[in-house]
Formats: sequence, C-alpha cells, structure tokens
Amino acid sequence: MNAPLKFDAATATVDTAAIAPFPNSTKVFIEGSRPDIRVPMRAVAQSDTPASFGGEPNPPIHLYDTSGPYTDPAAAIDIRRGLAPLRRGWIGERGDTEELPGPSSAFGAQRLLDAGLDSLRFELQRKPRRAKAGANVTQMHYARQGIVTPEMEFVALRENLRRKQYLAQLDASGPLGQRTAALLGRQHPGQSFGAAIPLEITPEFVRSEVARGRAIIPANINHPESEPMIIGRNFLVKINANIGNSAVTSSIGEEVEKMTWAIRWGADNVMDLSTGKHIHETREWIIRNSPVPIGTVPLYQALEKVNGKAEDLSWEIYRDTLIEQAEQGVDYFTIHAGVRLAYVPMTARRLTGIVSRGGSIMAKWCLAHHEESFLYTHFEDICAIMKQYDVAFSLGDGLRPGSIYDANDEAQLAELATLGELTQVAWKHDVQTMIEGPGHVPLHLIRENMRLQLEQCGEAPFYTLGPLTTDIAPGYDHITSGIGAAHIGWYGTAMLCYVTPKEHLGLPDKADVKDGIITYKIAAHAADLAKGHPGAQIRDNALSKARFEFRWEDQFNLGLDPDKARAFHDETLPKESSKVAHFCSMCGPHFCSMKITQEVRAYAAAGGIPEQQALARGMQEKAVEFVRGGAKLYREV
Amino acid sequence: MNAPLKFDAATATVDTAAIAPFPNSTKVFIEGSRPDIRVPMRAVAQSDTPASFGGEPNPPIHLYDTSGPYTDPAAAIDIRRGLAPLRRGWIGERGDTEELPGPSSAFGAQRLLDAGLDSLRFELQRKPRRAKAGANVTQMHYARQGIVTPEMEFVALRENLRRKQYLAQLDASGPLGQRTAALLGRQHPGQSFGAAIPLEITPEFVRSEVARGRAIIPANINHPESEPMIIGRNFLVKINANIGNSAVTSSIGEEVEKMTWAIRWGADNVMDLSTGKHIHETREWIIRNSPVPIGTVPLYQALEKVNGKAEDLSWEIYRDTLIEQAEQGVDYFTIHAGVRLAYVPMTARRLTGIVSRGGSIMAKWCLAHHEESFLYTHFEDICAIMKQYDVAFSLGDGLRPGSIYDANDEAQLAELATLGELTQVAWKHDVQTMIEGPGHVPLHLIRENMRLQLEQCGEAPFYTLGPLTTDIAPGYDHITSGIGAAHIGWYGTAMLCYVTPKEHLGLPDKADVKDGIITYKIAAHAADLAKGHPGAQIRDNALSKARFEFRWEDQFNLGLDPDKARAFHDETLPKESSKVAHFCSMCGPHFCSMKITQEVRAYAAAGGIPEQQALARGMQEKAVEFVRGGAKLYREV
Repeated sequence: MNAPLKFDAATATVDTAAIAPFPNSTKVFIEGSRPDIRVPMRAVAQSDTPASFGGEPNPPIHLYDTSGPYTDPAAAIDIRRGLAPLRRGWIGERGDTEELPGPSSAFGAQRLLDAGLDSLRFELQRKPRRAKAGANVTQMHYARQGIVTPEMEFVALRENLRRKQYLAQLDASGPLGQRTAALLGRQHPGQSFGAAIPLEITPEFVRSEVARGRAIIPANINHPESEPMIIGRNFLVKINANIGNSAVTSSIGEEVEKMTWAIRWGADNVMDLSTGKHIHETREWIIRNSPVPIGTVPLYQALEKVNGKAEDLSWEIYRDTLIEQAEQGVDYFTIHAGVRLAYVPMTARRLTGIVSRGGSIMAKWCLAHHEESFLYTHFEDICAIMKQYDVAFSLGDGLRPGSIYDANDEAQLAELATLGELTQVAWKHDVQTMIEGPGHVPLHLIRENMRLQLEQCGEAPFYTLGPLTTDIAPGYDHITSGIGAAHIGWYGTAMLCYVTPKEHLGLPDKADVKDGIITYKIAAHAADLAKGHPGAQIRDNALSKARFEFRWEDQFNLGLDPDKARAFHDETLPKESSKVAHFCSMCGPHFCSMKITQEVRAYAAAGGIPEQQALARGMQEKAVEFVRGGAKLYREV
Repeated sequence: MNAPLKFDAATATVDTAAIAPFPNSTKVFIEGSRPDIRVPMRAVAQSDTPASFGGEPNPPIHLYDTSGPYTDPAAAIDIRRGLAPLRRGWIGERGDTEELPGPSSAFGAQRLLDAGLDSLRFELQRKPRRAKAGANVTQMHYARQGIVTPEMEFVALRENLRRKQYLAQLDASGPLGQRTAALLGRQHPGQSFGAAIPLEITPEFVRSEVARGRAIIPANINHPESEPMIIGRNFLVKINANIGNSAVTSSIGEEVEKMTWAIRWGADNVMDLSTGKHIHETREWIIRNSPVPIGTVPLYQALEKVNGKAEDLSWEIYRDTLIEQAEQGVDYFTIHAGVRLAYVPMTARRLTGIVSRGGSIMAKWCLAHHEESFLYTHFEDICAIMKQYDVAFSLGDGLRPGSIYDANDEAQLAELATLGELTQVAWKHDVQTMIEGPGHVPLHLIRENMRLQLEQCGEAPFYTLGPLTTDIAPGYDHITSGIGAAHIGWYGTAMLCYVTPKEHLGLPDKADVKDGIITYKIAAHAADLAKGHPGAQIRDNALSKARFEFRWEDQFNLGLDPDKARAFHDETLPKESSKVAHFCSMCGPHFCSMKITQEVRAYAAAGGIPEQQALARGMQEKAVEFVRGGAKLYREV
C-alpha cells in the first residue's frame, strides 16, 4: 500500500509560491537589546486618505509574520541547505549544552548509515546537541531562574507589533495624523474570562508567564532555525496547521511545500503527522526548512517500527523514538499519557469510540497487556528526555470526543484530570507543557471544557482541535470547527489546531491547507478582539478605514488573503480604474451607501441641522478623548 | 451603466441543477388533518449497520426540505407557468379577500400595459387579491382570534420532522431498532437563554407564538405558491439568502437560477435585492417560481422611480411601490422606519458611517428635507397596507454598524429602541413583525445585541446579518460572519441572513450563494444544538453513526452537501470499493483509529478486563435509561 516516493534530494527546490512577495509589503526587522535579536514583521504600505475624505496619512501597518525568510527578498533560499540557524549563538552562549558525536538514538544512527536513503536524505552538516549531564535547558527552567533569554525578548517584541510606537508617531505628526491614530487606536474593552493581558508585553512578563507555566516557547535546541513564538492565554491566540503524508499517498517535497505554504498564510506552528516508511527523512527536511516550531506524535513512528502492531510497542522503542526526534529538533511532542487503562472501557458506550489515532493505539496496547499505559508509568523518564533538549509536552487528548454525542463524556473528562496531574509532574522537571483539547463539542458545552482545563491543568496553555460544533457538514469542517475555535479562543484557549475542509474525508492538499489556515486566523483574531487583546483592533480599524475611503488596494492588502480579495473584486470589475473608483459592483455608481454617507457627512458638516450637529460633534470629541485616555481602554472591565 | 438584459420569457427554462435529485433521497409528504395539508420532507435512505458492527436497522432520516417541487420527480416544472398555488384554497375559503380587476398600484398597471416589456414579462393569468374592505388577513390576526390556520398546522408538522414517530417506530421494532433509537434519540440538554421550546410543536403552539408576536409566518395572500414556514426563537433557526442583480450586471434568468439554487441548499427565505430598470419583472419571475417566502426592500425600487435622487422620494411614490409589490406577492418588506432624523448626526463620528443602503437613502432624505422620515411618520399608513395582504414587517436596521469599530454604538442602539416602539404599533394592527440586526460586532458584544432586542422589541423575531466578528478577511466574510451567526442564533436570533464570500467585494455568483448558504446552515444548526432544540441532534447522531460504521455513502448523503463530501473523498480514493472499505485515506488500512476502536470494543466485550467492563456496561445501561427517560432529555436545565 506504500506509494513509491517521488523525491530527489539533489534537485529539491523551493516552491515558488512560497517566496512570492505579498503586495505592497516589506519585510522589516525590529531590533532588540542586541543586534542578533531581529524580530521580523510584515509592513503593509497604504495610500493616504484622499483629500475629499480628510487627507490624513496612513503609514504602513505592521503585521505578525510567520513566513520566515521565505518572504525576505534579501534571503537566499535553498531548501537543500535549510534555513540559517539564528538561535545557534543564543543556545551556545548559555554553555549548558554539548555537541554529540552523532545521533544517540539507535534508529537515528541506523538511518544515517543506510546508503539506500542517500537520495532522500537532507545533508545536515551539524551534529545534534544535548544538555550537559545534569543540566536542564528548557525555557521554563531559565525563566524560573529569573533569566530573560533572547528568545523571551524576541517574543515580547513580536507580540507588541510596534503598536505603541505606531500610534505615538502618528500622534506626534500633527492633527491629521492624530485623526488616524484616534480611529485606529480605539478598541472595545474585551471580556477575557480571567486572562491578564497587559497593555504592553515586556520580556519580563514573558519570563514570568513561562515560569508560571501559563505560556510556553517551543524551542528545541536542535531547531536553531526557528523564530521564537509564545503560546499562552495572555498572548495573541496562535494556530497550528497539521501536515503529513499517509501510507496511501506520499512525497517529501509535497510536505515541505505544505509547510512553506502554511506559514505563508499564518500558521504559527506546524505538526508533521506523516506516517509510512520515510517519516524520519521527511521530518528532517521539514525541520531544517521551518522557521516555526514543529510538533509530532512520536507514537506514530514508534508504531511503524513495530509494523503497525500496537501490542508490540514497548517503552524501549518509544524512548529511542523520542531521542531520535528530539535530536532532529522537534519542538513539541504530542504524548497521549492520559489514556489510562481504567478509562478505556468508558469508551465502549460511545457513539464513535476512540477517534484519536494515538489514543486508540494506546488503548489497544493497554488492553492487550492488561497493564497501565507505559506512557503514564514512564512519564518521569519522558520528562528527563524532554528537558535535555527543551522539547515541550503537548499532552494529547487520546479520548477526545469524535462526535457531538460523545462530547464532555466521562472518558474525556477523566483523561483531562489525568493531564492536569501530569502537568504538575512535568512542571516539577521544568518541562514546558500544553494540553490538547477536543474535538466535537456543541457550542453551549465549550465553555465547560475551558473552565475544567483552566482549573485542573493550572492554566497550562490549552491547545484544541476546533472544536467542531456539529457533525452534519462533511466537506465544511473548517467552518463547523472555526465557529467552535473562535469561541474557545475567546474563553482562553492559547492555540487552535486547524481543521481543513477535507477533515473526515481525505488528505488536505494545498488549497485545503490554505482554507483551513485562513479560517483559523479568523477564529484566532475574533478571539483576540473578544478578549480585548491590546491593539488587536488596529488591523480591523485600518482595513475598515480603507474600505470606507474606497482605498481598494489597501483593503485587499490589509486582509488575510489579498490574492482572493483582489480576484473576487476583479471578477465583477476587472479594470484597474475600478480600484480607485468610489463605488463597487454591489450597488453600482449611482446607488452607493458609502457615497451617500459621505454626502450626509458633508451636508451635516456644512451645518445641515445645527443643533443635531453640535450634539454629534460633542460626541465625537468625547470619543477622541476616550482614545487619548490610553491604558484604560485596554483594561478589562 | 445599465447592462443590456439577457432574457427571453418565451424560452425560459428551469436550471437543470435545480431539479437534480439528491442522492438516495425521496420527496415525502406528511399529511395533516386534511388532504390538502401535505408537508414536504426529504427522506434520506441509509444502509443497515454491517453485521460486524451490530447489524441494527437505520431507517431513512427525514430532513427539513426547502427545495419545493423542484426536487419532486412527480412535479412538472415549467418556470414560464410558475409553481402550483397550493395555498389558494386556504386563502379563498377564509372568505375575507377579494380578487381585484388588476393591479391597484399605478406603477403595476403601467408595467402591465407596456408592450416593450412583453418579452420579459411573466404571463400571470391570476388577478391580485386584497382583503375585503375592513378585513385584516394576517396570520397574526387569525392567531389572535384563536384560529389555527392550515398554514399553522403545516408549520407545526414541518418543524417536528417526524422525529417522535421515527424513534417510536424504531423502539417498536425490537432490540436492534431500540439500539438505533437509543443512539439517535440522545441529545445534550441545551442552554437556551430563556427560549421556551416544547418537546413537540403543536398547531396550537404555533398559533400562540404567532399571536404573541414571538414568531411570524410570512405568507402574502398573493404568494399562494409558498410552502408555509415559521420564524421565531422557539422554532428551528432559519436562514435567508439575498439575491438580486445590480445596475452593473443584470439578467432575470440568472436571478431565478440563484433562487432555485439557494432553496436547493436550504435557504428558508430569499430576499430579492435587485436594482436597475427591470426590478418589477425580475421580482414577478422569482415570486411565481418560489416555494419560499420572498422579501424585498421597497425603497430600492422607489429610488429607481425617482432616478436615484433620494431627496425626490415621497410618501406617495413609496406607498404605490408597497402596493405594487404586495400585489405581486412579496411576503415581507424591509422598511427602515427607525432611521429618524435625530439619529443621523450620531453617525458622523463613525469609522464607516451608514453602510445600509436603505439607511443611507433615508438619512439623505431626512437631511435634505429637514424633516422626520416619512417612513416613521406614515408608519400606521404602512400598517394599513401590510394587513390587507399579510405582508410582514422586517424592520430594517439602517444604522447597523459597518465595522467592528462602530459596533453597538449610540446610533445603532437608538434605532433599535425605535424599532421596538414601531413593533408595538405594528402589533396594534396585527401585522407580523421581525427586527433586523447587525452587522459587524465582535464576539463579546453580540450577546448585548440580543439582550436589548429581546427586551426592547417584545421578543419579536430577530433577523440578523451575520454578525461579522472581524473586518480583516475580505473574501471570507461568510466565515467571519458565520461565527457570529452561530453565536447570535444560540442566544435567540430566529433567522440568520447569510453573507457570501463576495461580501464587500462583488456580487455573488452561484458558487458564492452555495458557500454562503452551507455556512449559514451550519451556523443555524449549531445554534439549534446549543439551544437544545428537541431532536436537532438526530441528524448529527445519524451521520456520526454512519461515519463510525464506515457507511461512507450514508455519511455523504446525510451531510449538508453530499456532492462535495463525495468529491473530496474520491479525490484520494476514487474507487467505488473504497466507499465500502473499512478505512480511509487519512490513515490508510493498517492504521485506522476507528478500526482499532472496534477491536478495543470487541476485546473488551469478550471479557478483556472483567471489572472494568462491568463498570462500562453499567454506564451504558444508565445511558440508555437516560434516553428512555424521554421528555426530560429535551427540557431546559
């Protein structure tokens, strides 16, 4: 059933779609306290407001940029060489790691010596690193020592998106700039269900959140190519994209393309869920070329090593797999250590049983051996490995509900409590930890998931798959789940694992990956707005300002998908002149509500109804004052 | 700017896509208390469960069917003749209406006599009807007299979807049928925010809700072709699809196609928002061929009559337009009577001003005349027209926010209060009324919209456009708004007006219409599940049961879009044999969590872990008992 592998390492090239520039965008770097802290952002240039609308300036908006060097025209991209190891110096200067002579896992060593893999292998010149004997190299460990790492500072700069400087510069530029600042800087106070988001993210705040376990920075010392990012309820909501071939279809090149495609559209993390014969080689190509953290489910590969027979799994095989992958640079492992023997029979009464692959493998193992899961019994041994490389836990929800019927049932909640218990064990070892969540859950039962997770897992970041809010729309599960994802993100989930339209039906292609990502960027941003994340509304305000002022290009370019917005517009009005026209195809030139509003304003401003106008002016001034109030805007009410 | 009209009445034919049968589906009719009450449903046949999974029967699931005679192979469809007037007898036998000699609006009479329109005109043989002098022919009026109309009984049967009979028949069929009933009949108790949804909808309940104003049955006496449906917070959440050409693009045939396409995928109502020179003729074709209620914004046509100059509008022109459209059979009118003079200046401080076309037209009129809106001052005159034809009000939110920035602002909320006041006036005349709502609203401010609407508008049905939960995704506003729609539907909104991917960018084509509708069917159903609408979960349970049992065809066919689900599956595994295979492309044959779960169950059932298994069995019995508890399942907790 294994398809032949179509890939040649010698001629592998980057997907041209991954390196195309975004329209009107420039890659900029914000420098931190030292020159090697250079935080990438995408600056989207805009036109100034037409004189007829007020003529104010609209300086470039800075967007969070997950696309790495691929969208940097100054970077030479060669996927055979991989990305530059930007964190190498930071890791080295800490002096708590050492270079190994070669892979210390048996499997890793064996693959390296297998000449039959030469044509598939990424030629890594670097040796793997590991903590020196007795050392703990996790970001959590440093944070708890009071150390602010370069990674933490990087993350702080990245989260702030230059918002404060942007508004301050506008404010300083005169009355017209102040008008732009007043419109862009206003934001509805959020409802954050107990999150504690500061107005400005400082490196020290990042440190304290990581120390507290409320946020993680996935940053394996063997993935120095990664640009640090943070996952936690007091930061921007992140999204994860799953890629990976299966035994049925298979190509390394396609998976690298899916990764570069996913980060182009905004994936903050990518999980490689490949199965089949060449998981090891596929993973190497992905990690070496990925500027975002990479997660895996080591159990999938361990199962391949025992030819798919779950009952033949052992701690020894699993352990070797963890080391193999940790030395390749995987940043977090999904580990289904909460699927305990006693919980398995609880799933017998479900409508859809155990739908997690990892969960079902472990359930089968437990029943076959009449034994407690080796992931649970060896959990401290696993921690000992994780802290040598700074691999973070993503404690898997192997018993998540696979249907609305099974939502929030006893099996699911029993596992969640165990994940809370394991979180405390991981934290004892200073191992960074997040918790995976469901699955299929109707809207009104979502909050209970979040409430229990916060309570039982000590506010460790929650990382959910959707949840899907109904089962009736195969082919549209990005949407059934995007609804649930926005919801649970608002309540406090830190990272949303995307679902593509192909969920339940087939493997996603690049179009599906993009649809899944855009849907989840929407959900994450809707959640940020609802939580009242400081400055999250700037992008909405800027885009709506462009829309109202008929700056069509700016409207397209500030959106999540400039290509599609432009294409949709052009389907009806393809001429370039229409992009500066003060009307659109929905109403035509003589019947445009935006245009009429302009007339209403002009009329009113000319003194149309003096007493009413005075009232309106008074309100407007009050609004501006509200914006100038600054911090209180951004505080929780 | 008006494009030439591509249409020929003599050769117009139905779109073949509209009459294709759904796979494995049969049109069935549930007969009411008299033979002419025949409620259509779509019965989706399923395979029985394979013997290896238990072998239980899976009788056809009955789905709510908005597609009208188009999907009835027994119906002869000729759009030049229109649909059969199924309500004609009911309207006639009430004896309170009379046939008019011809259109009583000046414009309607003039269009009929214009020979230049012959090639465009639908040849209606029937004369318009109107209430006899002094009569009130609204469903609300009958309801308040204690009369249960055939329309009300039709609606009650339609809402129940044979759920009770379905489960009862399974229960009576023996132990295997009981297992299916237990799995399909179980539902999570909902959280309905004060809705009062009964376990079974009776005709008397429908009557009481209509009398109370908490629900409406849009049913113009001049649209006897329509199949009655109900809009109210204690019924299934409905969706509306907007169609309509613009002055820039234009074809009558395309708009009829969009209507038949929209109802095929589940639009409960369709609004014709056409502009341009042939609104009257386009509307006639749509209504005569529509089995669902049709709504319009009469102001659009009135504006055409004064050549687009808002200040030239007058009550007389508007009044004639209302009568013209009422006699064509429009079931509800969006009327922006809440845009009062005093509220217009409140919009001057907005980021995006007035984005409603109707709202901006009326704002301009008010300012030009320094006068209160004629829609407001003539509101009782309008009521007098509405009750002669049973046209329902859809009180328009002309001041809805067009950006996140403007959400829940003073202008919006001032208008809402006025809509509440007008609702009381409409109810004084027994005119059915619903209230339109926003717009652009961040997630956490949605509930306030619903709360205020319920409070200020006496629980008249809320009918919202989205709301869009962020502005940053032009090209994906079906999704930004589907998130908000699911949310507000859960809180109590009765009908969700769809938004297509082209919103803000261009006019939707058929692909966009379908994407918008499926997204909104998802939102409406997610809301029904969250509210705990009795039996709403049956479809989810049936689909997930099919999924778990590898009944691929049943999984596709029970979904909202069988075509897409099948196509997605076949992209990876095109062979017919794969649709009976017990694996799928995501994991391949040797690595399937569903399959492993089956093994776990079999193992456990064989006595794998006796003490645990006994525990699981006990829980399963308890679950079945819970289902058998019946009514309490469906009650609000």
